[in-house]
Amino acid sequence: MKFKVRFEPEGKEVQVDRGKTLLEAAVQAGVDISTSCGGKGTCKKCRVVAEGPVDSSPDKRLDPKLAEQGYVLACQSYVAGDVVVRVPEEARAKGHQILRKHEAHELQRLSPLVSTVEVRLDPPTIVDNIGDLERLARALGKEGRLDMPLSLLKELPSALRKGRQLKVTSAADDVGGWVVAIRPGDDGGAGAALDIGTTTVVLSLVDLGSGEVLATASDYNRQARAGDDVISRIAHAEEGGLEELQELILKTVDQLIREARADAGGAEVCALSVAGNTTMVHLFLGLDPRNIRYEPYIPVTNLPPVVKGKDLGLGIRSEAPVYFLPGRASFVGGDITADILSSRMHEREELSMLIDVGTNGEVAVGNKEFIVACSTSAGPAFEGGEVAAGMRATEGAVEKVSIPSSLEPTLEVIGGRSPLGICGSGLIDLVAQMFLRGLVDKKGRVQGTDPVRTRFTMEGGEYLLQLRGEGHREIAVSDSDLANILRTKAAVYAGCSVLLSAVDKGFEDLGRVYIAGGFGNYIDVENAILIGLLPDIPRDRFKFIGNAALAGAVEALLSRERREESMRVHEDMTYLELSTSQRFFDEFSSASFLPHTDLERFPSVARRMRR
Amino acid sequence: MKFKVRFEPEGKEVQVDRGKTLLEAAVQAGVDISTSCGGKGTCKKCRVVAEGPVDSSPDKRLDPKLAEQGYVLACQSYVAGDVVVRVPEEARAKGHQILRKHEAHELQRLSPLVSTVEVRLDPPTIVDNIGDLERLARALGKEGRLDMPLSLLKELPSALRKGRQLKVTSAADDVGGWVVAIRPGDDGGAGAALDIGTTTVVLSLVDLGSGEVLATASDYNRQARAGDDVISRIAHAEEGGLEELQELILKTVDQLIREARADAGGAEVCALSVAGNTTMVHLFLGLDPRNIRYEPYIPVTNLPPVVKGKDLGLGIRSEAPVYFLPGRASFVGGDITADILSSRMHEREELSMLIDVGTNGEVAVGNKEFIVACSTSAGPAFEGGEVAAGMRATEGAVEKVSIPSSLEPTLEVIGGRSPLGICGSGLIDLVAQMFLRGLVDKKGRVQGTDPVRTRFTMEGGEYLLQLRGEGHREIAVSDSDLANILRTKAAVYAGCSVLLSAVDKGFEDLGRVYIAGGFGNYIDVENAILIGLLPDIPRDRFKFIGNAALAGAVEALLSRERREESMRVHEDMTYLELSTSQRFFDEFSSASFLPHTDLERFPSVARRMRR
Repeated sequence: MKFKVRFEPEGKEVQVDRGKTLLEAAVQAGVDISTSCGGKGTCKKCRVVAEGPVDSSPDKRLDPKLAEQGYVLACQSYVAGDVVVRVPEEARAKGHQILRKHEAHELQRLSPLVSTVEVRLDPPTIVDNIGDLERLARALGKEGRLDMPLSLLKELPSALRKGRQLKVTSAADDVGGWVVAIRPGDDGGAGAALDIGTTTVVLSLVDLGSGEVLATASDYNRQARAGDDVISRIAHAEEGGLEELQELILKTVDQLIREARADAGGAEVCALSVAGNTTMVHLFLGLDPRNIRYEPYIPVTNLPPVVKGKDLGLGIRSEAPVYFLPGRASFVGGDITADILSSRMHEREELSMLIDVGTNGEVAVGNKEFIVACSTSAGPAFEGGEVAAGMRATEGAVEKVSIPSSLEPTLEVIGGRSPLGICGSGLIDLVAQMFLRGLVDKKGRVQGTDPVRTRFTMEGGEYLLQLRGEGHREIAVSDSDLANILRTKAAVYAGCSVLLSAVDKGFEDLGRVYIAGGFGNYIDVENAILIGLLPDIPRDRFKFIGNAALAGAVEALLSRERREESMRVHEDMTYLELSTSQRFFDEFSSASFLPHTDLERFPSVARRMRR
Repeated sequence: MKFKVRFEPEGKEVQVDRGKTLLEAAVQAGVDISTSCGGKGTCKKCRVVAEGPVDSSPDKRLDPKLAEQGYVLACQSYVAGDVVVRVPEEARAKGHQILRKHEAHELQRLSPLVSTVEVRLDPPTIVDNIGDLERLARALGKEGRLDMPLSLLKELPSALRKGRQLKVTSAADDVGGWVVAIRPGDDGGAGAALDIGTTTVVLSLVDLGSGEVLATASDYNRQARAGDDVISRIAHAEEGGLEELQELILKTVDQLIREARADAGGAEVCALSVAGNTTMVHLFLGLDPRNIRYEPYIPVTNLPPVVKGKDLGLGIRSEAPVYFLPGRASFVGGDITADILSSRMHEREELSMLIDVGTNGEVAVGNKEFIVACSTSAGPAFEGGEVAAGMRATEGAVEKVSIPSSLEPTLEVIGGRSPLGICGSGLIDLVAQMFLRGLVDKKGRVQGTDPVRTRFTMEGGEYLLQLRGEGHREIAVSDSDLANILRTKAAVYAGCSVLLSAVDKGFEDLGRVYIAGGFGNYIDVENAILIGLLPDIPRDRFKFIGNAALAGAVEALLSRERREESMRVHEDMTYLELSTSQRFFDEFSSASFLPHTDLERFPSVARRMRR
């Protein structure tokens, strides 16, 4: 039996079977509802107001006041008749702020994944009567068999006879050397570099002749509907959702290619370089990721073979090479190799650390001699997950917080509008400022210092960053939220600490700390040190390198030497498995305080607290 | 409007549209009717008796007596109502005698197109947690990225977890080195070598471990319905028949693979090595052959890239490499390279000649220093074409003729039954014996020496090899048939002669004359010299090497050194275009006599004639 579900204010209406959830109906209607738990009813972000018969799971965790107002969780409400659904602004995924910038190093010599040469062919004669393919090979200066896909070989005779000028695009020898495209006339081809994050996907369209980035497009990973972190995605794949997840990421990428091509004037993509975490790369390739999830955490591959556009059905040339930055382990993927490649830390004498605070929180330490890396399983707290008021860095998110001695907070909101929630950089600021003003103790428990903005319930304290009744919704941070934030920052710090111990070094030995990832560019270093997320070392050693994974993918797209360097990073990198490390758990426990149990590690914070 | 067409004696019945030819109806019914002109009404081999309304082109060339008996040409008769068609025995293509034998040289070391190794994999642990693909690469002793097709990579995790033993089949490094198959358990794979002739197709299934030929299967090329020679096939392709021709040869090959696998116990084909003339290779690959036909005779390629089973949709492993022996020119293809490879003439000091009397009549001369080759456009006279009583070497074909001084011919017939026509070796014998007995003059005109068996009409003389009324049908050879035979033998001899002059040599300088091709094994050397097809040199210099193209394909399948040697043959071979050579026309004219205008070239024949 089918019922009508209409979504307001859009007025989009769909017919769905009885028993479908409102979230499923929304997907069908093309209405984007925010969810980060993948429809499990735990993130409580998909709150909508439903008018009409729905069977809802009685979800105790939903604020009774909201329930009274007609709010339900879209993922836990089953259609039982014609329904009108009002989707409030805070439940929407919308206009976003994804880091697109990346630091482009000058490459000495371009040797892209594919290169195009223009050849001039003399017409055949009775004495110069070699085959068309051999004529082309001769013009290209190649000996022996020219590796041309059959589909292109079929086009060759007519292409050759259309004109004596021919543009030939070939894959670089190190990736296979086959012919990718033959084109009469003068339309050029471009390359693309792709950073597939668990949360965000960014693509740059690159001119392979000049190395110039022509356009960059970004979007959230459409797989998000199956959960915010890699484990939820793997679980979804295990439950028969592998093809669906592959299709979702391919659609995401296709859309980015379309956008970037529209921006840059339609150049066709002849090569793609991909940096992604191991799970994302598996899903992109349609490889079963299930063994990543269970000890001993084995991926199908950290070194995916070069495939072709047609193997994936992407909207690029069917023979275009698709190259993957090599990963090191199930939780230190090609994105981290790309970060390292782009940072150049692997080519320097001095000891450096790299922190990529994405969903997982990967850390690497090393220099030209070695690299050791780990994943801290930090969790998505800084990406809007696990915190009730948490949200992605989209319009309406509080991205900066300062609490002066007056205790009246000042907020900066993305889009300059009424705030709907807090994103990662805002949370760091908030916790740091609360700590500085004594609004939270070192264990992360809300204190009653500001009675106006503090509330205590059976479940503990809550700090109200924004009060209801100012024409705004209430934005609160609870003890439970703070515990999640502390867990995340402790995991990152402990990972850094354990890595350094593993190589008998300390934070003081670090010449540089690279902070990579979309998150990195918006974070306030002082506040990050205040909460003990970043180590308390001279501030000039921190270097924000933006979307370094994308920058590394661009480098691999453009240079064989950089591709070879990425293989060297892959080979030289040692992976440290933290999930079985007692030392990590000890460090993690010590770090689960503000800023740390051992205040001597944070002398500047200690000084500020004493003031 | 549809009508019923029934074929007798099988009783097969089909429904066809009005206006279809009886030949098309036969194809639809799966009734094999002989044709060598491709349905143009010129070969007159598809004579059938039709009862019922057919619109026939009034074909003046059909013997009025046959027409009176109800005979029509199946290709020129259009269905105009329900028809019963009786297909006489002589109009059928059936039980055949295709040369399968080939001389197998001992190969020093096997390095086949694909090789299979059995690896034993240690299960992953938390400290040995590299990816599945990297584990496999390590077990195979390979460094860097293992080139595994995505389809196989998807199967890898479950294959690895089924058992620790795994059979891995990889393409040889010189053809690309990718992984072709991964199999748990112990089923092996085989390779196949293929000789695609214009007329016949032969396939050997080969054990890649031992190099042993497991089974050989052969059949006529199903493309024959589009004409007997390469030019008819190209014309058919030009008229929109390319896909049809590709499908026909693929079906032929698939059937051979099935037969050979049934013989050899079902081993899966993991590699295919192909020798074929340039046109056949084009049609097999679906490449447009049109430019082969017109000056300056340019093929799409003489060096086809290695493709995969899946590119062709053949019944072999989808990732199996399909390798092509390199050709030299549009009319000296990979089959001739394979002949030369197999003969070893290119590795010897002494000067050798190779003659492949197929439909084209290719000739090569050379030694370890050089090879020069040409195609003589001999025509299909020795394959049953262009001669009224000519037929392929199938059941009922006269394959040996001797005419003693009593002038009463003795015939040997394939299948030991009543003769239906004459095949190539029979024609050579017949012309030689007629010449020896004065039944034909040196210009190839029938003489009245045996009044019983001679008939003269407006169109010239006819010699009746078999008289009507002996319970047999009449088998006659006319002046016009003899002219075609003389043209063919003159072309081959002239080609040999011109090639030798081109390198300043004569027949006396030849250490060896290799005779290759299906035809070669059944031919009587003395008779071939008598008619001036072969040169008059010491008989022990002739060496029949059977289906050398297939043998060469087997060698390339089994050995990288032989594949490299075939490339050396390709590079060292000079192609001589005869169609523009005045010298060839002069030689051809002089050779268009029995045995030759210049009897001094045939001293042994001169001696026999004087006797």
